[in-house]
Amino acid sequence: MNRHILFIFLLLGTGIPVPARAADAVEAARAFRQVHPDLILNRFAQFLAVPNVAGDTLNIRRNAAILRDRFVQRGATMEILELPGASPLVVGRLPAPGATRTLGIYVHYDGQPVDSTAWTDGPWSPVLRDGPLSEGGKPIPWPGPGQTTDPEWRIYARSAGDDKAPFAALWAALDALDAADIARTSNLVFFFEGEEEAGSPHLEDYLRTYADRLQADVWLIADGPAHQSRRPQLVFGVRGVTSMQITVYGPEHGLHSGHYGNWAPNPALLLSQLLASMKDADGNVLVEGYLDQADPLSEADREALATVPDVDRALMDEFGLARTEGTGSLAERLLLPSLNITGLASAKVGREARNVIPPTATASLDLRLVRGCKPEVMQELVEAHIRKQGYFIVREDPDHATRLAHPRITKVTRGRGYPAARTSMDDPIVRPLVAAAERAAGEPVILMPSLGGSLPLYLFNEILEKPVVIVPIANHDDNQHAADENLRLANLWYGIDLWAAVLTMED
Amino acid sequence: MNRHILFIFLLLGTGIPVPARAADAVEAARAFRQVHPDLILNRFAQFLAVPNVAGDTLNIRRNAAILRDRFVQRGATMEILELPGASPLVVGRLPAPGATRTLGIYVHYDGQPVDSTAWTDGPWSPVLRDGPLSEGGKPIPWPGPGQTTDPEWRIYARSAGDDKAPFAALWAALDALDAADIARTSNLVFFFEGEEEAGSPHLEDYLRTYADRLQADVWLIADGPAHQSRRPQLVFGVRGVTSMQITVYGPEHGLHSGHYGNWAPNPALLLSQLLASMKDADGNVLVEGYLDQADPLSEADREALATVPDVDRALMDEFGLARTEGTGSLAERLLLPSLNITGLASAKVGREARNVIPPTATASLDLRLVRGCKPEVMQELVEAHIRKQGYFIVREDPDHATRLAHPRITKVTRGRGYPAARTSMDDPIVRPLVAAAERAAGEPVILMPSLGGSLPLYLFNEILEKPVVIVPIANHDDNQHAADENLRLANLWYGIDLWAAVLTMED
Repeated sequence: MNRHILFIFLLLGTGIPVPARAADAVEAARAFRQVHPDLILNRFAQFLAVPNVAGDTLNIRRNAAILRDRFVQRGATMEILELPGASPLVVGRLPAPGATRTLGIYVHYDGQPVDSTAWTDGPWSPVLRDGPLSEGGKPIPWPGPGQTTDPEWRIYARSAGDDKAPFAALWAALDALDAADIARTSNLVFFFEGEEEAGSPHLEDYLRTYADRLQADVWLIADGPAHQSRRPQLVFGVRGVTSMQITVYGPEHGLHSGHYGNWAPNPALLLSQLLASMKDADGNVLVEGYLDQADPLSEADREALATVPDVDRALMDEFGLARTEGTGSLAERLLLPSLNITGLASAKVGREARNVIPPTATASLDLRLVRGCKPEVMQELVEAHIRKQGYFIVREDPDHATRLAHPRITKVTRGRGYPAARTSMDDPIVRPLVAAAERAAGEPVILMPSLGGSLPLYLFNEILEKPVVIVPIANHDDNQHAADENLRLANLWYGIDLWAAVLTMED
Repeated sequence: MNRHILFIFLLLGTGIPVPARAADAVEAARAFRQVHPDLILNRFAQFLAVPNVAGDTLNIRRNAAILRDRFVQRGATMEILELPGASPLVVGRLPAPGATRTLGIYVHYDGQPVDSTAWTDGPWSPVLRDGPLSEGGKPIPWPGPGQTTDPEWRIYARSAGDDKAPFAALWAALDALDAADIARTSNLVFFFEGEEEAGSPHLEDYLRTYADRLQADVWLIADGPAHQSRRPQLVFGVRGVTSMQITVYGPEHGLHSGHYGNWAPNPALLLSQLLASMKDADGNVLVEGYLDQADPLSEADREALATVPDVDRALMDEFGLARTEGTGSLAERLLLPSLNITGLASAKVGREARNVIPPTATASLDLRLVRGCKPEVMQELVEAHIRKQGYFIVREDPDHATRLAHPRITKVTRGRGYPAARTSMDDPIVRPLVAAAERAAGEPVILMPSLGGSLPLYLFNEILEKPVVIVPIANHDDNQHAADENLRLANLWYGIDLWAAVLTMED
């Protein structure tokens, strides 16, 4: 038992209020989790034991009810809201007397669907192991009160990492502050979604319908993993996304490559030439105006980039790559809009290949967007590029007359999409958040300007008109979305400390 | 009954020998087919009734035996030769007293496999119809002796066009000459293959093993259809063919296009750029040295080209094309080596597309070769081009170390292949053959320097060291290889006249 724990123990006995300084809050959190690992983990395991796949209506409602009850127990006013055909939304408020700032906290309580046969333990039968399964981790008993835990132990269950971990961390942080009589410095508004893994089909509806209940100064998105280096990170954005499909036409039906090869235009060649024209040999996008849509980076953004560890070489080794596209690190490249071919198809290859001039060739593209890029504008720029290559664009397969009228025809289908969300590093919320996270981590945290992946966080920007910051706590190797999902204890402990610090941060 | 028929009838009655002039021979053939349509068609129908798919050993042997017997009846010395696992080869000789020239005649007696359910009549139940099925042709009785026939009647059965028609024509031509006492001017050597539709797997073996029995001055390949314009043609060559498969590598496994898009090289883009570099925007091959391999065309070749009707516009209309590759007519383009993409594949497109950077992208190519192009040399030139684009070529999927050592890697798999065969229009056999065909056709015939498709006719050039000329008689709309294959009577009549003229041609 170290000095701080002794200090807290003494305070707990006396009822004397503790000054609300984040440093103290982190100490309180540490003390609490060292004294009460049993409470924290048992509560978490009970919640993990409730199946939580969106669409499993009965169980999803059980999850929502548990969330409501547990936050009510901690003084919050909670509501379960419903829209037709949607998983329930759990919202709530937990005011802090005298606080002028309100933090919105987003977590999702649903998990990815499971293939139970692929799991070592059942997906909803939480098991504590003395290490990762991949290194032979063995089941061990859940700890008793005050029992020393090893930070490398792992909890195995669906959503242990993605995304029930933040609930366990929040409950423990609130309890620790309460036990130590430390006052929070911000009001809290909760937004707990129950169908994120199903693509958040009602997120926009919920935000619009219940905007009045969701007034906060910033939205903290409690989701996602820590950095691959195991160092904690704060993430200030995600890319947007949209897609396009391009089909180029040759003869109306496949022609014999002997009888007509060299004469009938080959759509696979035409498509190759069209795609080749969109990027240079280094992989830089050549579509006019495409890169210009991105908001420029600020000095603070560049400083944040400098905090990101260089994992490029390690990833290249892992993926078997001798080069990468363009210039700049992975973190920098993710701040550019991408134009990526996700698939090509024309007739058949290999043993199935026939001596044919194919009638069509098709490419699927996905466009990852950064702040400033509107999905429709990016699609428009790609189409303008296609037209510049001499193509007539159609929206349905061309009829005979259209084919005869245009030497180069492509059908372009535009996918739906949404823009990026990114909070500028100059935003006033950034400094206190970073300070709180560093206090919890005990070291500088990584400030990641944007993830490469896409989430519809722009809705928080556009509907609630507030910035978003992602506060991940799970280990990066948590098998999220797969079998044997798990949470490393060290990451849960960090999460508890992090929330204790965030809930007590000053300006 | 016209003047000529009357003339022949008078001669037939007298036993007076007829001078061996091709003009007379054609008259004799016409007279014979007008008097004996019953004999010609019944004999043909009996032969068509014998199933003839290579591999159906029993029936294939029945076909071979019929061929042997029918040519023996006409004075030939016939042999049925066998190689292990092969359809029997039927060879024979029919000398002409005093002749100094020997014509080799190639026909194949096997037919394409059938899907009986797709046939209106059974594939081996020959039916005579009063027109094409596509225009409602109705079954009619086979004609009796001397009965007038309509040239638009059609005989429906497997191999009616491809390739038993030449046998019916040859038998009738030989009988007509015999009946009119007209002497042939060439010795004949027969080579009847029984597995052409199975890819001629033993053609080379048969030619090498029995080369001593196959001494002829020219090989007439009796196969294939007349021109789409319905005008008769002589064809002086076929393209050779080979293939290649090119796989370009990205990351070792598919990567999330959000997390790594813009950074991990995309093999679908790389493949597109590589393929795009091989041809210009008009479809002309850019691979260095590729087009130079082709033997130049002679003045006579160009004159032959001028006889080919311009079908380009009609074909473009049929196929829905507003442009063709390069410059020049279809017939001219077929005299260039082609480089055609027969298929593209990388991950998935359309509804199956996922947000991935694919691990590989693959293209299948076929290379159609003209005289002068060696398959291995053409493949070598393509590989040299690929290397010039910065690629390291492997023959198996690269291992991790290879991936890390080379920024651009492609696996190239070379298909087997064979060269073109083309008889120069200056060859001494050409003039008399053309004269004979024009006599039979009653109009100028089309002199096609080369078909676009490929057949291993180079074997006749290389093993027997003799030129080949294709002498097609079937209608172009004979549904060859499909259900309801048929032969138009006008085409059979032309075939009989043609062979009567060829068998009696002067130098």
